[in-house]
Amino acid sequence: MQENRRNFLKLGATSAAVGVLGQATAADAPQPQVGAIAPLAAQLGLRLATFSPSKDEKPRIGVVLDNGNLIDIGAEAQRARVKLMFDPTSMLSLIDSGDAGITQVHALAEKGALLRIARPHVNQVQLWSPIPRPRANIYAVGWNYLDHFEEGKAARADKVVSEYPANPVFFTKGVNTMNSPFGSIPFDAGNSTQVDWEAELAVVIGRAGRNISEDQALNHVFGYTVYNDTTARDIQQKRHGGQWFKGKSLDGYGPMGPWIVTPAGIHLDDCRIISRVNGVEKQNASYQQMYFKIPRVIAELSRGMTLEPGDIITTGTPSGVGFSRKPPEFMKPGDVMETEVTGIGILRNLIKAEG
Amino acid sequence: MQENRRNFLKLGATSAAVGVLGQATAADAPQPQVGAIAPLAAQLGLRLATFSPSKDEKPRIGVVLDNGNLIDIGAEAQRARVKLMFDPTSMLSLIDSGDAGITQVHALAEKGALLRIARPHVNQVQLWSPIPRPRANIYAVGWNYLDHFEEGKAARADKVVSEYPANPVFFTKGVNTMNSPFGSIPFDAGNSTQVDWEAELAVVIGRAGRNISEDQALNHVFGYTVYNDTTARDIQQKRHGGQWFKGKSLDGYGPMGPWIVTPAGIHLDDCRIISRVNGVEKQNASYQQMYFKIPRVIAELSRGMTLEPGDIITTGTPSGVGFSRKPPEFMKPGDVMETEVTGIGILRNLIKAEG
Repeated sequence: MQENRRNFLKLGATSAAVGVLGQATAADAPQPQVGAIAPLAAQLGLRLATFSPSKDEKPRIGVVLDNGNLIDIGAEAQRARVKLMFDPTSMLSLIDSGDAGITQVHALAEKGALLRIARPHVNQVQLWSPIPRPRANIYAVGWNYLDHFEEGKAARADKVVSEYPANPVFFTKGVNTMNSPFGSIPFDAGNSTQVDWEAELAVVIGRAGRNISEDQALNHVFGYTVYNDTTARDIQQKRHGGQWFKGKSLDGYGPMGPWIVTPAGIHLDDCRIISRVNGVEKQNASYQQMYFKIPRVIAELSRGMTLEPGDIITTGTPSGVGFSRKPPEFMKPGDVMETEVTGIGILRNLIKAEG
Repeated sequence: MQENRRNFLKLGATSAAVGVLGQATAADAPQPQVGAIAPLAAQLGLRLATFSPSKDEKPRIGVVLDNGNLIDIGAEAQRARVKLMFDPTSMLSLIDSGDAGITQVHALAEKGALLRIARPHVNQVQLWSPIPRPRANIYAVGWNYLDHFEEGKAARADKVVSEYPANPVFFTKGVNTMNSPFGSIPFDAGNSTQVDWEAELAVVIGRAGRNISEDQALNHVFGYTVYNDTTARDIQQKRHGGQWFKGKSLDGYGPMGPWIVTPAGIHLDDCRIISRVNGVEKQNASYQQMYFKIPRVIAELSRGMTLEPGDIITTGTPSGVGFSRKPPEFMKPGDVMETEVTGIGILRNLIKAEG
């Protein structure tokens, strides 16, 4: 605990928020400290969160307003006597309902925002991953920023891959990697002592498809969110014969959120993908530096393989990860990993020794 | 179709059954031709299938008797006025119900087998994968027979891996790979022209666990089934920078079944893992040749990663796959792939051009 507090005191711009988080190390999911809400690229965009008013209450879908207040969609529908086409406790149900469902949410949020009633604020509720329990493993892209591919060349175990692949590299992360935006990440030195950060922009699929063309790909997107492809680097690189899955799939090694922003609310070219550890910036790149852009990723992944509503694709991390640094850096209990995609929001996760 | 029929005429022992299947190429899931039912290792074992009496009816759980007749567990419970602790239309629900549920199934099957009533036969029903829609990707083990590792050395793209890994190699197969025991496997030359067979023994997890010890591992097993880790070898080896996931994950590239046998019904050391293409044997190895045995696989996979009821782990394929042959052999439309684990049963899948 003393060690934790020392680390928090080192923080820069985020120190106040993280300091409060630091006091909550005993809790599995500390109270979120969302901070300023990034403006959306257009008023038509929605921030869609999965939250509980308090930890013991059932998760539900909410729309996050610019002032950080949450519109509880189920409650709002009751108030407005609207019969919803989806289950307002499940983001997957909303995604499944397609355009009709999201149109209902738009209408409820628009009217609700005009009402002068007390609403919970994102800093007062429990924010969960927008999709707490995915229906399949999370799809992930490897080496999708040229500088990240180059930085890893010397450190990688698989030195045979020296030329940049002509197609995206895909692997998956297990369903129990899913973690909430401010949840703690388990550290067990018996399994891994090389816990590394990978800030990423993630895509949530809205419409099923197979052999999707690049032209059509963005029509299959439900929204975008922030993801950290947290990696047990020792396991990924050396323990399992070069396949990455297991080192990418420890429980909790994939915080996501703090919400999904629908496509109208995002200008991809303006997004920056950023990570900080204990307040020190480690990664910072533009979507424009992404090598295989999202339409190509969706097209390639869906070749012969059906993508389904609610599927999550995390699109790869820029340079600046720990294992490529000289000397290599890894996270230890008490460290705080921040992951930001500008225009969406920030995740903040404490590395926490397993008891 | 002429080509198909020629191939069927080449068949040996299985030719009669496959011949009938061959005439059903127009249907997505031809009528199964189960053939002789392998005896169980002990009377306490159960064969648990997911079936529909006819294609248009809802899937349900059935117990397959030694004579091939099916006890419809939901119907049997109604007849016996037993209130089930699980949803008899869902194998996952039965698995979730734990020992209590399986005890109910045992009792119903035992009493039901004594009744002299007409029952559907496995050759008259639609058999589905025992778990038609898994809750997560299928976990898979690579290189788990020494002779398969050796045979691939020359042909593999990733020549850097020349020493046998000290731990099992893990990857995953997408949820839409799941196919029924007699379903056809899509062939699309635009995606892959190197469709290869990999006969495997699969484990279904019954009880959740993380950091499971080798000693305890078999207590987490619900049962065993037959699996073919069908592989688009060109995609696996060359298209995605050495990560296997995508080449292992085309829709339908993972037939499973024809049922799950509970642990009491299996002597693992007596199991042989066999594949045939158009009736010609391609693989045939004993479980005893498996390098990392099932307890080690479960222990290693669950390190830091929670396994859950209904999770499927396919345990690797023996030597004899197509791409290691000289010259390499791959399947084409009209070919019939058979996968057998002795003591469980046989899968039979037609390779079928996508229309």
